[in-house]
Amino acid sequence: MSKPGKPEAVPSTAPTRPQARLVKGFRDIEAAELRRLERMIATIREVYERYGFEPLETPAFEYTDALGKFLPDQDRPNAGVFSMREDEDDQWMSLRYDLTAPLARYVAQNQQTLPKPYRRYAYGSVYRNEKPGPGRFRQFTQFDADTVGTDNIAADAEMCMLAADTLEALGIKRGDYKIGVNNRKVLDGVLEAIGLDVADPINAGTRLTVLRALDKFDKFGLLGVRQLLGAGRMDVSGDITPGANLNPDQIKVIERYLSAVGEDEDDEETLNNLSQCVGISSDGLKGIEELRSISALVRAAGYHTDRIRIAPYVIRGLEYYTGPVFEAELTFPVNDEHGHPVRFGSVGGGGRYDDLVARFTGERVPATGFSIGVSRLAAALTLLEKDSAKPTPGPVVVLVMDKPEVARYQALTQQLRNAGIRAEMYLGNAGMKPQMKYADRRGAAVAVIQGSREREQGEVVLKDLIAGEKAAAAIKDNAEWKAARPAQITVKESDLIPEVRKILAQYE
Amino acid sequence: MSKPGKPEAVPSTAPTRPQARLVKGFRDIEAAELRRLERMIATIREVYERYGFEPLETPAFEYTDALGKFLPDQDRPNAGVFSMREDEDDQWMSLRYDLTAPLARYVAQNQQTLPKPYRRYAYGSVYRNEKPGPGRFRQFTQFDADTVGTDNIAADAEMCMLAADTLEALGIKRGDYKIGVNNRKVLDGVLEAIGLDVADPINAGTRLTVLRALDKFDKFGLLGVRQLLGAGRMDVSGDITPGANLNPDQIKVIERYLSAVGEDEDDEETLNNLSQCVGISSDGLKGIEELRSISALVRAAGYHTDRIRIAPYVIRGLEYYTGPVFEAELTFPVNDEHGHPVRFGSVGGGGRYDDLVARFTGERVPATGFSIGVSRLAAALTLLEKDSAKPTPGPVVVLVMDKPEVARYQALTQQLRNAGIRAEMYLGNAGMKPQMKYADRRGAAVAVIQGSREREQGEVVLKDLIAGEKAAAAIKDNAEWKAARPAQITVKESDLIPEVRKILAQYE
Repeated sequence: MSKPGKPEAVPSTAPTRPQARLVKGFRDIEAAELRRLERMIATIREVYERYGFEPLETPAFEYTDALGKFLPDQDRPNAGVFSMREDEDDQWMSLRYDLTAPLARYVAQNQQTLPKPYRRYAYGSVYRNEKPGPGRFRQFTQFDADTVGTDNIAADAEMCMLAADTLEALGIKRGDYKIGVNNRKVLDGVLEAIGLDVADPINAGTRLTVLRALDKFDKFGLLGVRQLLGAGRMDVSGDITPGANLNPDQIKVIERYLSAVGEDEDDEETLNNLSQCVGISSDGLKGIEELRSISALVRAAGYHTDRIRIAPYVIRGLEYYTGPVFEAELTFPVNDEHGHPVRFGSVGGGGRYDDLVARFTGERVPATGFSIGVSRLAAALTLLEKDSAKPTPGPVVVLVMDKPEVARYQALTQQLRNAGIRAEMYLGNAGMKPQMKYADRRGAAVAVIQGSREREQGEVVLKDLIAGEKAAAAIKDNAEWKAARPAQITVKESDLIPEVRKILAQYE
Repeated sequence: MSKPGKPEAVPSTAPTRPQARLVKGFRDIEAAELRRLERMIATIREVYERYGFEPLETPAFEYTDALGKFLPDQDRPNAGVFSMREDEDDQWMSLRYDLTAPLARYVAQNQQTLPKPYRRYAYGSVYRNEKPGPGRFRQFTQFDADTVGTDNIAADAEMCMLAADTLEALGIKRGDYKIGVNNRKVLDGVLEAIGLDVADPINAGTRLTVLRALDKFDKFGLLGVRQLLGAGRMDVSGDITPGANLNPDQIKVIERYLSAVGEDEDDEETLNNLSQCVGISSDGLKGIEELRSISALVRAAGYHTDRIRIAPYVIRGLEYYTGPVFEAELTFPVNDEHGHPVRFGSVGGGGRYDDLVARFTGERVPATGFSIGVSRLAAALTLLEKDSAKPTPGPVVVLVMDKPEVARYQALTQQLRNAGIRAEMYLGNAGMKPQMKYADRRGAAVAVIQGSREREQGEVVLKDLIAGEKAAAAIKDNAEWKAARPAQITVKESDLIPEVRKILAQYE
C-alpha cells in the first residue's frame, strides 16, 4: 500500500496487486493442529465445568481505561496492547491482552446480580502488541478459571486441584507434571526478615531485583541466583546483569528459602524450613499459614506431593498477585524435532489477586484464578503423543468417472453422509488419475468408483487406499499389480454403507 | 480518560476511577446463551465435517491491502473495518470483517500445497466498525464453508444441501425452512432482455437500482418493488426513494421474472418461465442451465422443493457474486418476547465468487461458499425452543456447616467430581441461610449438608432443591414445613455418589 508523504511510495493509481501474506507475528492454524486444539479445549472445558465454573465470553475490545495496566500515551498507545481510537465517541479502545482484566470489568459492572462468590471460566484469543519471535505470537489462546468475591483459601486450594485434574484429563500421567504452590506473603516475609521491609518504598527497587533473580532459578540454578542476588551475573556473551547487592548473610537466608523443600517433600518439613526464613514477619507467618491450609485441603481431597507441592521458587511474574501463586509444570523429558532434549516447564499458572475490581468500584473484591497457555500446552502434548497418535483418515472420496452421471455420484455421496460417514464427491474437472491423487492428498481411506460397467450391474468398486499403499510398496511389477488389484473390492450398490464401514473400522 | 487539547478534559493526575462499561456495540455472552451457542457450533461443525470440509483458522488481523474491498483513506482508515497502523513495519492492518477475504489471502499464499479443489470450513468472530443498533453488534460469529478452485456446478449444489442438512441437524423441521437458489447470470440476462446490457458501464447505475429494488421484495412485496422499478416509492414518513425509472414494459418483464415460480413449485415450470424473461441473452441462458443442473443434482440426492427451490427474488447483497446465489430462510411463524409475530427470514447464504483470489495472483480461481450468521440463527432457535427447553441444573453445592472441617467438605466435593458429577463447595464465608440462597442462585438441584451430628454418624443430608421448591409452594405453615422436611433425605456418606445420582436423574 502506498504511504502518504514518502517519495518512494507507489502512486495509488498503479495497478499493483497486494501480496498475499500474514501480518507479522500472526499465523494460520491448519486442520490437523486445529482439531488437536479443539479436542484439548473440549477436555479442559469438561474439567472446568465439573468444578462448577460457568462459561463467560467478553468481547475482544475493552475501553483502554477499563483494561488498565497498560495505559496509552497521549499520541499513540502501544505499550503492549493493540489500541485504536473509537469512532463513535472518540475514546481509546484496546484488544484484550488477557482474560482477567475483562473479567474485572464484567464483575464491577454486574456485581449486583452475580452469585457471591462468582465462579467463571473463559477461553479465547488474547492479543499482545509485542515483537514476535520464534514460537511467540501476537495472538494466542488462554483458558482461565477464576473465583471472584471470596478470600477463602479453599478457593486457592481448588485451583491447584483443578490444574492437576486438567493435566491428567489431557493425558499427562501422574508424575509427568507437578503443581507448585507458593505465596507472595512468604516471599515478602523473607525480604522483611533480611531487613528489606516491602512496605517501605525505598526497598521497591531491591525487592524487584530479588524477585527477578528468584524467577531465574529455573534457568540459572542456585549458583546463578546467588550471583544475581549479589554483585551480578555475567552471561556467556560477556553481558553483565546487575545484581541486588545483598550481603552474604542476606543471600544465605534466601538460599535457605529456595532450598526449603525437604528430601522427601514432606509439607510439614518444608513449612518448618520456611518458618525459619521469615523470622517474626507477620506477613511471612500469615503466608505460611495459608500454605499450610492449602496443603491440608488438597491432601484431604487425595492429592499428594506427587501432584501438588509447596515450591518456594514459583514466582509467576512480578506484579499483580497478592497471596498464593501456583504454577503447572511438565516434568517429563521430551525431545524436540531435532532429537534434542527439551524442558517444557510451565504450561499454566495463576494466583490470588485482590485489587483488580477495586480499580472500578473502590471496594476490595478478593479473587483467585488459574490460566492455561493453550498453545504451549498443545505443543507439549504433540511431543508427548508423537509416536502414539495416528492421523484420522480423510473423508471417503467418490470419484466422478462419467461426467453426465454426476447426479448419481452426488446421490452416492449423500447416501454416505446420511449414514454419518464423512464423504465428498470429487468436485474438480480432471480425469481418473488426478482424482486418485486428490483422494490421496485428502488422506482418504476409501475411494468409491463406479464406471459404466459397474453402473449397469448396480455395483460399485471400493478401493482401500491405506491397504493399497502398503500393498503397492510390496509389489515390484506393474503387471503383477494389474493382475492382483489388491485392496479393492466390488460390492452391490445396496451394500455401499456396510462395506465402506467395514473398511473404515480398520482405521479407527 | 483525559483527551489532550480539550479544555474540559480531566487532568491526568486526578485520582478518578474508570467506569466499568462495555465498548459501544459489543456485548458479554453469559453462561446459558454461551452453552446454547456452543452446542450449535458443535452441531454445525459435525455437518460440515461430514461433508468433507477441513477446518482452518486464520488470525483476527490481516494487512489492510490484503483484505481489500474496504481500503483505508490516507489519514485514518475506517470505512467499515477496524484498522490500525502496524508498529513493526508501519503498514496498515485491519480486523477481518468476514471469513472469505482471509480465505482468499490464505489460498493465494498456499496455492502450491493445497488439494485442488480446496474445501475448508471456518468459524469465529468478525468485526464491523459500523454504527451499532438494537440487535446489531460490531463483533459477531460467522460459520462458513467454501470450495475453492473449481467451477463445477456440483460444488454449488452441494452448498444448498449442506445448508438444508445443517438447519435440520439444528432441530429445524422440514417445512420450517427453505433454501432458495438464484443465479446472478439470470438476473443479468433479464436486464439484458429489457435493454440494459450489464457490460455497458452506462447502465451500471440503473442495474444497481434494479438490484436494490428486487432485494426489497421480501420487505415491500410486489407493489413496492413495482414502485421502486418505476418512479420511486414514498414510505409512511413521506420520504421518497427514487426509482429506476423503467418503462411499464420493462417492469412487466421483471415482475414476470419475480413470479416465475409456478403454483406447484415445479422446477421445470420455473425454469421455463425464467427462459421467457431472459430472451436470447447468452448470460441469462447459461444461468438457467446452471440452475437446471443444480436442480437435477439436489433432486437426485433426495432433496425436493420442500427443502431446496429456485427463488428468483434471492439477491444476496449487491456485488461480489458472479453466478449461483443461495439463501437459507426460516419460514415458521414465531412470536417475539412481546408476543408479536416475527418473520425471521434469512439466517445464512452464499454463492459463487470467482474473482477474490485473482486480486493477489492475477489468476482466476473459481470458488463458492455458504455462510451462517450464528447469532441470528441462535436467536431464532431460542424462540423455537422457548417452551420445550428446560434449563440444565447447576452444580451440586456442598455446604460448609463447620469451618474447621472444611477439608472434609472439600473431600466430599472432590469425590463427586471424580465420579463425573458437576459439583462445588461453597467458597464464601457466610452462614447456612446465605449458603442455601447461593445454591438457589446457582440453580443447583442438590445441596449436600453435613452438620456435626451427621458427621459423627458417617452420614450426609441431601436436599433436592427442585422438589423442595415445589413442596414449599404447596405448604402454607412453617411448623408443618419443619415437621415434614420434604425433599430431603439422610444417607450414608459411603452412598453419596449413587444417592446424588438418583436425584439428578430426575432432572436430566
